[in-house]
Amino acid sequence: MSATPVTTFAPLDLRSSPDDLTAALVDIPSVSGTEGPIADLIEVALRAEQRFQVERVGNTVLARTDLGRPTRVLLAGHIDTVPIADNVPSRRDGDTLHGCGTTDMKSGDAMLLHLAATLPAPSRDLTFVFYDCEEVEYDRNGLTRIQAEYPGWLVADLAILAEPTNGQVEAGCQGTAAVALTVRGRRSHSARSWLGDNAIHKSAAVLHRLSAFDARIVDIDGCEYHEGLNAVGIKGGVASNVIPDECTIQVNFRFAPDRSPQQAIAVLQELFADVELTVLDVAAGALPGLSAPAAAEFVAAAGGTAKAKFGWTDVSRFAALGIPAVNYGPGDPSLAHTREEHVSMSQIREMTEVLRGFLA
Amino acid sequence: MSATPVTTFAPLDLRSSPDDLTAALVDIPSVSGTEGPIADLIEVALRAEQRFQVERVGNTVLARTDLGRPTRVLLAGHIDTVPIADNVPSRRDGDTLHGCGTTDMKSGDAMLLHLAATLPAPSRDLTFVFYDCEEVEYDRNGLTRIQAEYPGWLVADLAILAEPTNGQVEAGCQGTAAVALTVRGRRSHSARSWLGDNAIHKSAAVLHRLSAFDARIVDIDGCEYHEGLNAVGIKGGVASNVIPDECTIQVNFRFAPDRSPQQAIAVLQELFADVELTVLDVAAGALPGLSAPAAAEFVAAAGGTAKAKFGWTDVSRFAALGIPAVNYGPGDPSLAHTREEHVSMSQIREMTEVLRGFLA
Repeated sequence: MSATPVTTFAPLDLRSSPDDLTAALVDIPSVSGTEGPIADLIEVALRAEQRFQVERVGNTVLARTDLGRPTRVLLAGHIDTVPIADNVPSRRDGDTLHGCGTTDMKSGDAMLLHLAATLPAPSRDLTFVFYDCEEVEYDRNGLTRIQAEYPGWLVADLAILAEPTNGQVEAGCQGTAAVALTVRGRRSHSARSWLGDNAIHKSAAVLHRLSAFDARIVDIDGCEYHEGLNAVGIKGGVASNVIPDECTIQVNFRFAPDRSPQQAIAVLQELFADVELTVLDVAAGALPGLSAPAAAEFVAAAGGTAKAKFGWTDVSRFAALGIPAVNYGPGDPSLAHTREEHVSMSQIREMTEVLRGFLA
Repeated sequence: MSATPVTTFAPLDLRSSPDDLTAALVDIPSVSGTEGPIADLIEVALRAEQRFQVERVGNTVLARTDLGRPTRVLLAGHIDTVPIADNVPSRRDGDTLHGCGTTDMKSGDAMLLHLAATLPAPSRDLTFVFYDCEEVEYDRNGLTRIQAEYPGWLVADLAILAEPTNGQVEAGCQGTAAVALTVRGRRSHSARSWLGDNAIHKSAAVLHRLSAFDARIVDIDGCEYHEGLNAVGIKGGVASNVIPDECTIQVNFRFAPDRSPQQAIAVLQELFADVELTVLDVAAGALPGLSAPAAAEFVAAAGGTAKAKFGWTDVSRFAALGIPAVNYGPGDPSLAHTREEHVSMSQIREMTEVLRGFLA
């Protein structure tokens, strides 16, 4: 009926407190694919600082210093969110800020943007990357394009992604493999079941082997990686009166990053040498890389300990490039993608000051 | 474009040999729902014998003697077939007659029709039932209507259904129960699998209990009933990165007819007392009833032994009415519903003579 209204947002004030800045960012909707307005505001605000070389690529905004410092730290945050669930604009309640993206990860973006404006003389050269489409397919992820077309922008001694870690440093991540195990039998009418060979019954042995798997807990650079081997799907059956001749079990293996994808698959092939195994997907883990000097200094500055990241994040992308990388950002990661997403405003301020201490 | 051609069939000659009569019946297509022409020809042929009270109900033809004999034998055959699969008209090859319905069950119908015409003075009163729509839903089955509207036509001391048994007497049948067993767990991200409780892994114990079930082999009236307890379907899984919180196993229990449906369900409820169990369907078996005098005499006439019928047939309907009932007809039942359906012509003639010996 009417044209889509054009909403105009106030310029971002990067010098406002990082919790106020978080609220301002949350109030600019930026579901994946619609990051134009928020990217415009970030670009304008960073160019206004005049101390950065700024580049705009699609809805990704890049900014870096060139101060000739001995080390360079890359600070990155995605600016998109999952779809809004009646939780924009933001809402304050005591120390808590509610709203879509409060955790994942506009509080992290606010921390980085605030530091960009308030660290006039950092001890390290800084590269800021505010990128789009992290919540959707890998090919649309802004970092994928930067890596392909502007690889020089990703060179650094340490990458810090401000994904939610609830105040911790999280490093590296597990690898993940998906395989299908197919157990075969022989059909018969269920009224003459002894003429068949029940593939579903035979699958019990496979399931037992999965649950009996001795999942390792591996310590690398002080981070503990818990492995896990699980059936995540099962399907079998022909008809209600037929002994089934096939049962397929979909298996997910989360493996510590001391195993390569090839080694992880070999573990499964050995465990199920007598079962038909199809590899559906395998993604490498990421070693924490905390023995690198810049990474070790950051861990020390952030309290001295790091823990393993469970899920895949863009940290793995940097690890694959040989760049030590960690996650460090406000908010409880288990709230990400929930309608109840919220963040502690004092935590945003505290983490910003920790990061300032490392970069100043 | 043109009107459907009206095919005219020659009258049935019930005195021709039962194998020739089988071929004539096969050559009259009668897929379930289209039995009009074959029912017309059967009705005309039986009325021509003049020794029967004949009744036509839909496409079911009923005929009976009233000779005051001490016992009455009901002889029944369905006149419909499954869809034709390029196997009509019939084709002879040595002793073999090929074609749709040769086994299931126009050879049995031919045996009964030939005896109707060639047993002028039977030792028992006879009731013939040629009924439609046995191959489709129970509610369309011609016998269902007769049972509801003309129950007097089903009174007898023994019912013989000429379903294919390959020369044997088959009696009674297993009951069948379908239940769903739902195993529950707790979801978690597969990267933190130790926080969840894998319902698929837990299902292994249920599958093990199924395969370890001590299936009875029960002898009743000389018939052996093999019980069977089997998973016929399994389904579980949420997503490839989620520890599943639910796995459902569909179970089929074929039970000997010495158990009632209630007793069969109780067996399952006891075996799976700790699992969520939903009864999907249960159908009673049928006791062979061979201790009844007329049934025992028929078994003796047919060679002295009977075996258990595996699947459900209309025999169970008669058993439920308290009428001893057996299957006895030419053809290998495993050929029923196949494109390769065929029958031995000498077997048709031999079985007809056995049945004549019992009825004469």
